[in-house]
Amino acid sequence: MPELVLRNVRPWGGAAVDLRVAGGRITSMFPHDADDPRALTGAPDTVFVDGRGLLGLPGFVNAHAHLDKSWLGLPWVSYGGEATTEGRIRHERAHRDELGIPSVATTTTLLTKMVSLGTTAFRSHVDVDLGVGLDGIRHVRDAVAGIGAPVGLEVVAFPQDGVLRRPGVLDLLDRAAAEGADHIGGLDPASIDRDPVGQLDALFGIADRRGVGVDIHLHDGGELGAFQYELIVERTRALGLAGRVNIAHGFAIGDVQAVRQRALVEAVADAGITITTVAPVNAPRLPLTELREAGVSVGLGTDGIRDLWGPYGDGDMLRLATRMAQLAGWRRDEDLEAAVRIASSDAAPFVGREVHDLVVGAAADVVLVDAANVQEALVEAPPRQLVISGGVVVVDALSGGEQGGRAARPVL
Amino acid sequence: MPELVLRNVRPWGGAAVDLRVAGGRITSMFPHDADDPRALTGAPDTVFVDGRGLLGLPGFVNAHAHLDKSWLGLPWVSYGGEATTEGRIRHERAHRDELGIPSVATTTTLLTKMVSLGTTAFRSHVDVDLGVGLDGIRHVRDAVAGIGAPVGLEVVAFPQDGVLRRPGVLDLLDRAAAEGADHIGGLDPASIDRDPVGQLDALFGIADRRGVGVDIHLHDGGELGAFQYELIVERTRALGLAGRVNIAHGFAIGDVQAVRQRALVEAVADAGITITTVAPVNAPRLPLTELREAGVSVGLGTDGIRDLWGPYGDGDMLRLATRMAQLAGWRRDEDLEAAVRIASSDAAPFVGREVHDLVVGAAADVVLVDAANVQEALVEAPPRQLVISGGVVVVDALSGGEQGGRAARPVL
Repeated sequence: MPELVLRNVRPWGGAAVDLRVAGGRITSMFPHDADDPRALTGAPDTVFVDGRGLLGLPGFVNAHAHLDKSWLGLPWVSYGGEATTEGRIRHERAHRDELGIPSVATTTTLLTKMVSLGTTAFRSHVDVDLGVGLDGIRHVRDAVAGIGAPVGLEVVAFPQDGVLRRPGVLDLLDRAAAEGADHIGGLDPASIDRDPVGQLDALFGIADRRGVGVDIHLHDGGELGAFQYELIVERTRALGLAGRVNIAHGFAIGDVQAVRQRALVEAVADAGITITTVAPVNAPRLPLTELREAGVSVGLGTDGIRDLWGPYGDGDMLRLATRMAQLAGWRRDEDLEAAVRIASSDAAPFVGREVHDLVVGAAADVVLVDAANVQEALVEAPPRQLVISGGVVVVDALSGGEQGGRAARPVL
Repeated sequence: MPELVLRNVRPWGGAAVDLRVAGGRITSMFPHDADDPRALTGAPDTVFVDGRGLLGLPGFVNAHAHLDKSWLGLPWVSYGGEATTEGRIRHERAHRDELGIPSVATTTTLLTKMVSLGTTAFRSHVDVDLGVGLDGIRHVRDAVAGIGAPVGLEVVAFPQDGVLRRPGVLDLLDRAAAEGADHIGGLDPASIDRDPVGQLDALFGIADRRGVGVDIHLHDGGELGAFQYELIVERTRALGLAGRVNIAHGFAIGDVQAVRQRALVEAVADAGITITTVAPVNAPRLPLTELREAGVSVGLGTDGIRDLWGPYGDGDMLRLATRMAQLAGWRRDEDLEAAVRIASSDAAPFVGREVHDLVVGAAADVVLVDAANVQEALVEAPPRQLVISGGVVVVDALSGGEQGGRAARPVL
């Protein structure tokens, strides 16, 4: 991987800097100066990119993806399932084979779109069930490996079709954990598996034994969902899994009375549980301000995109951050910046990184957009002028960025 | 205005057609055939555009705009108001002068952005108050007249700062109606003016006397809002104003119990009242499916964009239609198409048109996007490849669309 010098970018809208990249990481960063020899020298194959004073952000982090599910790139698939979680599960199981899902090809199409839009690290749920076994995980890993640039990936082995109600799935999850999945997933222990204690005990048992994380889809609302929040809190505490357990969706915390919500927020914060949201517009709104004030790490993800669950999703994390900020009712500058940070730098823990930002030592994941400040980047979600993932230029709309003939050759 | 021939476009994703435009209207439309003489002939100044088989939609209709309020194009304005309607009104009145709002210049900037994204007709509320008087209406009309293409405009004289509580505003509204405003507006008769019956009687009095429409901002929720729905229904019926009265926002109908909601939907339908929404994600969701099933005309609008009420808004009606569809929980193909129709053809009545579609006799307002079908156009909201408003090409990203040297010269 050749060295890269990125010149004249404004990290988070601040003063312009130059930065040098080697081995996929940012190795130095200093004020932009056209004549600074540190930005002018390099090995014969060093790539120089002129950032033209654009606003620089770290790559976006998609903390809740389903990289295995999409039919993007295939002819349009009309939605035909029933309007319930169970109906959608059935619909997906009935039709995925005819679409060739999961596969490396479909995952690559989706991944290409999202990386092009600046997402450089993913936590992806990948279906694990009696039909596909662990094939989906292999497909997703192969697709990520084949994209042409280092892209961050954490895999959640996700029992989309249920756990206890499908004998054999627990063994699959256990094997996935043994074979390197970063987390095991769960799904509505009450409404799908009909045994909240049973599913959670089984999942936490594997997590404890294998040393992996837990990342549970919890759609159940109201008191039923709140009860499962409590069960998850209890097990996280008992097993000392602070920082290793995530609740995805978790609508219930937005669906109970204020005093109950406050207690749940405190319990989640105290247990060190994180929350991921896909910023849905037709579900109870999470108390994002309260969660952040309590110190809960909140991650943002796209959920599935154009799959058998529904036709939506453009894969743009910046636009999704706009929607999340609107859902939260945020309007002040510091809140708008916080929304972009949730979608990028603050999401480091969701993809197993210590740090993820435009700082020395971090992975060289950089997105450039034409915006006066980070607030404008959020509300406008402008086209991505440059995307660098792990030190490799994947998108370069800055024509003529060459210097001395050593131009970037974008891989996408 | 020269004739225009638009070739090889797929209206609503159907079979490719050619269409001819004269005097700003679609004068003929026939199956696309490379050798059809009807598509090859014209006066010396006839403009020919090759639509390349792209998907064609009618221009979008923004049924709830505030063309006078935006600071778009000025340096970023940090939001500083309080988080209430009253707080935001105060904030706007305190700061608009220093930003030069309202003005032809700021309106033109916003309008240019929205027309570029394919909106070709607007119903715009324009602030009328003791500070600006009727100046804002003049600015908006001047900006629209200066945009370089025929753009549809209906003006609502909007008492943003209140009606009864500001003696003199009723006279301004009456004058606005006398001088050509299409509608007079209102604002939360209960929570802002503190006299729902008084405000509504006064507004309906002017509408009745001057023969203009009524378009009322109603944010009030729950039973307070529902009561004002009833007051509006009663006055609409009493004065025979079916089809002339619109409730904007109207959160209350999404905020009451199911049985009460059903009664309100029926009353609104029966009285011939229309509803406009800006598809807000942090307010009670309107029962869009139920309203449509009851035959209520629903219009979609952007609301204010980057103004002293908040920093959001990218002006893209197609993307807004996506959000509306998601709010409504629509996933089936026919519902996705319905969402695009709400944002375009179905909105004809909101801008005083009999018909607004890709049909002979309609205004030649055309948007081309690269999408397989209208559903994909909705979920992806792709870049606008061509925008024609009133027969004039305003955006043309189809380089090389020339034929015989008579290329379109886009005005924006």
